[in-house]
Amino acid sequence: MTPFSLRRGMATLASLKKAGKVVCIGRNYADHIAELNSARPKQPFFFQKPTSTILLPGEGPVIRPRGVNLHYEVELALILNKRLKDFDPNDEQGALDAIESYALSIDMTARNVQNEAKQKGLPWDISKGFDTFLPLSKPIAKSAIPDPHNIELYLMVNGEVKQQDSTQLMLFRIPRILADISKVMTLEAGDIVLTGTPKGVGPVVPGDVMRAGIRVDGKELEEAKIEVA
Amino acid sequence: MTPFSLRRGMATLASLKKAGKVVCIGRNYADHIAELNSARPKQPFFFQKPTSTILLPGEGPVIRPRGVNLHYEVELALILNKRLKDFDPNDEQGALDAIESYALSIDMTARNVQNEAKQKGLPWDISKGFDTFLPLSKPIAKSAIPDPHNIELYLMVNGEVKQQDSTQLMLFRIPRILADISKVMTLEAGDIVLTGTPKGVGPVVPGDVMRAGIRVDGKELEEAKIEVA
Ligand SMILES: [Mg+2]
Ligand SMILES: [Mg+2]
Ligand SMILES: [Mg+2]
Repeated sequence: MTPFSLRRGMATLASLKKAGKVVCIGRNYADHIAELNSARPKQPFFFQKPTSTILLPGEGPVIRPRGVNLHYEVELALILNKRLKDFDPNDEQGALDAIESYALSIDMTARNVQNEAKQKGLPWDISKGFDTFLPLSKPIAKSAIPDPHNIELYLMVNGEVKQQDSTQLMLFRIPRILADISKVMTLEAGDIVLTGTPKGVGPVVPGDVMRAGIRVDGKELEEAKIEVA
Repeated sequence: MTPFSLRRGMATLASLKKAGKVVCIGRNYADHIAELNSARPKQPFFFQKPTSTILLPGEGPVIRPRGVNLHYEVELALILNKRLKDFDPNDEQGALDAIESYALSIDMTARNVQNEAKQKGLPWDISKGFDTFLPLSKPIAKSAIPDPHNIELYLMVNGEVKQQDSTQLMLFRIPRILADISKVMTLEAGDIVLTGTPKGVGPVVPGDVMRAGIRVDGKELEEAKIEVA
């Protein structure tokens, strides 16, 4: 099989780290909002992770900073192929056309740091931004995901299923997400967008093994697998 | 005079937009903390602006999004020349050595959006991240700024001085800033660090003209000037 890095016209592993930015939607699944006692947003809100958080397959473990309550959040990531500015939220086909490929991602979060930031009205950047806080799968060809709003995401810790839900449960779908982000900041080819996490987030400690993946019509996507300590 | 873009070994205007990330220190001047009724931080905190906010000299006006109370914050920016990870806060010379060049910057802020985010415990990214929200000067050679902790920053609106203070007033100096950021996220060559704003921030509306600059020993640095509507 041709490695992804050699396929013409698709994001390569190396190119992922050169993304101009990584933009992440918060609170995009109702049951996840409930489990964190958060308010349901009237519109998508988002934050950035620096590209220095990216951890590619085989690059080693997620590093837990001292004193941090480290949480996983499995999310579908979009890798864009064009510049978007003031994107039309009703343009379903345009949204799909703007996706170059997909990846599975884990939005690692220092939950205690985030909770303190929320209380004090401070930025989320530290809680979301430590090195290794964004494990990514290989890029996933668009052809492998006929409908990004109808796949199953899962995450297991030490063999136990913690998260497992369909992307059908997204509160704001991809065209709306791209519209709301690009009303604020121009999105560029290569930028990565994380679409939010379903319920089931929780802590991991050093030595735990996270395995995450995507099922399409019940079938596992090999290239979407993440296994990280 | 040789344009900066042709000088060997110094950041060029074009290269600024390719920065891997822009990291900004909040609340780094005591009088600015007082004017916003903010709490004085025990340690530096920081947030990111996407590189899509960068507005280079001559690229036109800052765009005020509808309904936004748009504030200026003049700040000294550092452009880095190397990777920094767990930088030593006591390494004064190492900090200077890690600076490739300087720039003057205006950290434009949607103050009402930021205030709402603070109240709700939401990220700052939207309030700081609109396109054109980071006017930059040309790169400034290190030789023009012998001591970054002893220069005067100023910002005028329609000819009236609004901000004018020495960088001596920084609460956390550059080595500490680089140390605290790089404990969280690895800094890379080309990354841009904003060092915080002195007192005097305030609103601008379309048509207002901001002029900002740096004085070293009372003398204006021509390359540090920003003039933007
Ligand atoms: Mg998340
Ligand atoms: Mg970037
Ligand atoms: Mg600022």
